[in-house]
Amino acid sequence: MTRWPLPVPMQRALELAAEAAAAGEVPVGAVVVQAGRIIGEGRNAPRALHDPTAHAEIAAIRQAAAHLGSERLGGCDLWVTLEPCPMCAGAIIHARIQRLYYAAPDGKGGAVAHGARLFDQPACLHRPEVYGGMGEGESAALLQGFFRERR
Amino acid sequence: MTRWPLPVPMQRALELAAEAAAAGEVPVGAVVVQAGRIIGEGRNAPRALHDPTAHAEIAAIRQAAAHLGSERLGGCDLWVTLEPCPMCAGAIIHARIQRLYYAAPDGKGGAVAHGARLFDQPACLHRPEVYGGMGEGESAALLQGFFRERR
Repeated sequence: MTRWPLPVPMQRALELAAEAAAAGEVPVGAVVVQAGRIIGEGRNAPRALHDPTAHAEIAAIRQAAAHLGSERLGGCDLWVTLEPCPMCAGAIIHARIQRLYYAAPDGKGGAVAHGARLFDQPACLHRPEVYGGMGEGESAALLQGFFRERR
Repeated sequence: MTRWPLPVPMQRALELAAEAAAAGEVPVGAVVVQAGRIIGEGRNAPRALHDPTAHAEIAAIRQAAAHLGSERLGGCDLWVTLEPCPMCAGAIIHARIQRLYYAAPDGKGGAVAHGARLFDQPACLHRPEVYGGMGEGESAALLQGFFRERR
């Protein structure tokens, strides 16, 4: 049996997550896609950059918005290897991301299907379509390997 | 009667909010204070910077973290003219801000005393002390003036 391949944006997000791990950062990667083309990429880097906001999603969103010359990313999709935290879910709302694809769930830090469930809040200004689970095994393996080494 | 003066950090945050309004951005300003000294400042600038994450609090936190060479701002206080949104409240958690002072409440977009109430979530990793209301009138006047002009 050959396993169905992951979509290219999730493959790239997983590569970015592996790069984060190699740099000593929690392995999370993200890309922003517009019309099938990657226009923003990011990986976790708060330690190296001395920036508590330097999550993968924030970096990918900032790069895509700079590329488009617009604070809104309507029609763009975000692919990320881990369920977004409240900060990143909030940025996804501000950026008007159309579809969110995330790989592994985050029962402790996530704010999409767990915790604050930001997109389900009555006052939420923009709700992306949300698809979870693609690449979950690959992402969870990266995270588990990273935290196992550090214990 | 002479009105009791606002603390200097909130005065400065209000100045930054007024600068944002003059630049055509929603008037919100923020400063980070460590041991009585301002080490980070920011104002809303998503339109000019083409960056949906360029809120006042994010800018102030990033500047303070770069100044200290650390992703954690333990022992630092954040002063901001409006109740933080989910993105900014999430950044406050990641940065380990000790005390949050905000001026005006935000019943629609706020995530501290309204909506997701992020610091009250059971899984919240860090809870700052929160003080609201100082400078509320001044901040609300700036916001109302800004939106009145644009209607």
